[in-house]
Amino acid sequence: MTEFDFIQQYLHRQQQDNELVLGIGDDAAIVRPRSGYDLHFSTDMLVGGTHFFTDVAPEDLAHKVLAVNFSDMAAMGATPRWALLSVALPELKQDWLTAFCDALFALARRFGVTLIGGDTTKGNWVFNVTIIGETPRQHALRRDAAQLGDDIWVTGLLGLAAAALDVYLHKTSLPAAVFAQCEAKRLRPEPRVALGKELLSLAHAAQDISDGLAQDINHILKASNVGATINVDLIPSLPDLRLSDAFLPAQLYHWLLAGGDDYELVFTAAPSQREAIMAAANRATTSVTKIGTITAGRELQLINHAGNVIQLQHQGFDHFG
Amino acid sequence: MTEFDFIQQYLHRQQQDNELVLGIGDDAAIVRPRSGYDLHFSTDMLVGGTHFFTDVAPEDLAHKVLAVNFSDMAAMGATPRWALLSVALPELKQDWLTAFCDALFALARRFGVTLIGGDTTKGNWVFNVTIIGETPRQHALRRDAAQLGDDIWVTGLLGLAAAALDVYLHKTSLPAAVFAQCEAKRLRPEPRVALGKELLSLAHAAQDISDGLAQDINHILKASNVGATINVDLIPSLPDLRLSDAFLPAQLYHWLLAGGDDYELVFTAAPSQREAIMAAANRATTSVTKIGTITAGRELQLINHAGNVIQLQHQGFDHFG
Repeated sequence: MTEFDFIQQYLHRQQQDNELVLGIGDDAAIVRPRSGYDLHFSTDMLVGGTHFFTDVAPEDLAHKVLAVNFSDMAAMGATPRWALLSVALPELKQDWLTAFCDALFALARRFGVTLIGGDTTKGNWVFNVTIIGETPRQHALRRDAAQLGDDIWVTGLLGLAAAALDVYLHKTSLPAAVFAQCEAKRLRPEPRVALGKELLSLAHAAQDISDGLAQDINHILKASNVGATINVDLIPSLPDLRLSDAFLPAQLYHWLLAGGDDYELVFTAAPSQREAIMAAANRATTSVTKIGTITAGRELQLINHAGNVIQLQHQGFDHFG
Repeated sequence: MTEFDFIQQYLHRQQQDNELVLGIGDDAAIVRPRSGYDLHFSTDMLVGGTHFFTDVAPEDLAHKVLAVNFSDMAAMGATPRWALLSVALPELKQDWLTAFCDALFALARRFGVTLIGGDTTKGNWVFNVTIIGETPRQHALRRDAAQLGDDIWVTGLLGLAAAALDVYLHKTSLPAAVFAQCEAKRLRPEPRVALGKELLSLAHAAQDISDGLAQDINHILKASNVGATINVDLIPSLPDLRLSDAFLPAQLYHWLLAGGDDYELVFTAAPSQREAIMAAANRATTSVTKIGTITAGRELQLINHAGNVIQLQHQGFDHFG
């Protein structure tokens, strides 16, 4: 099978898209943007061995490749609309590709995203997605908008993906049922797009948690010239991780704060918005938890219920670490 | 140096851009598209060992990574405006990066393109660029617009990059001065953006020649449901390649028609536009040559001055060949 057969067979699928003038198959795709909307652009490269294991199921890989990009849109409050995918693979295996593309298009369809560009080449397991989303003009959840006294919230449960990875790497063990929950989170993160859109009118700053909460919230603090206090005992996770005697606090804190791969949102909002945020979370069927407060200190302070200060050994995932 | 230092130091440079609401540094960049314009999207992945040699000078690599994407915009008649760059490198070397980024931003600036997204990760020499360009609404040079009786034109000189590659691979030899011209073309293709814009109102179909003229024009023929006759003796190249007795016709034809990496444009236009096209080429300081005619045959026929039919052994570059 040649590159062109591949593109024809799998990527050239018709999708309903009112703004799409010309889809895949020319030197470029053409989009006619809606007036009154801003466009959001983000790109992510996933490399085999670093961001995923190359024996991953094609369905899981397809999900992750798109979902991590949708998560960037969610963090802006943007609705993902179009994606471009580049793939380097050592060989083109018919069955593998069918499973990969079916899962990719299923997720794209679920989020109303059209694939408008693709490049395939021989190489060693690299996937790159560029995602384009939209928000109503001048609305966006930016990192530089946190305000003194804001509540700090996170979505979903943190630390599951990192715990699953540690099991995979034989650094720890978990009961099978707990591991299954963690592994599902690691392999199939659910982008918080619906909540992101709701937060456009409610939150100040937002960011997705892909490299670990401690590192990622620091981007907000730096951009907004503020500090934060977070109570680590409030960070939502699986009770089986939280309450187990099997783990040292340092291990648990690593998962919750620095493990990475959570693809949840951390956002800040005025305390006056608490009820509205809970209602929005309900509409988006996404759990949210208040874990701290924006302070004047310009630093991130981690405390526990007892009021003790927590020190992290590593802040988060460094892509060249 | 960490990933974030890298982004800060090199990619976070301020550029003049009236449509840019928010540049690199958040989960996404924000662009406010101009009304009355369509946006064009394309993505290209370049893998070390396949698309470039990893001992290439960083300045040349930076040029090529961007230029091949600008060429896709030129082929649509679009003006490139924004680019996102993902990089996987085995290590971050200060000097190498400085040279790479300086050359990258110099070329971007020359074409008025803003870098609005970046991802850097550890991996084995992969560069992915997504390019976004614009045309006035409903204007574009599409592959499906060739018409019966159209002239077929190409820009610049073909076959130089393929000849240089064959020297590099010790498959052939060239006089030093000739090799230098060919190698410059291989390493620093000049995207035909200025001419592409001129052609918006003059040409019917267009496509860039990256995989070899014979293969690439076939995309136009297929999309437009037409055929073509091309006189291979009219294909512009270096006289030193054309006239040398050192090369077999098969080798020369391979370079001209199937070698790839030319990044010139092939386009079709009504014969009544010949003078206007020559004038536009002058304004864009880009040479153009008429090499054939669009026919009803649905096939590509290659002939020479003597009227003999030429058969190619390989149609062009297959990315999984």
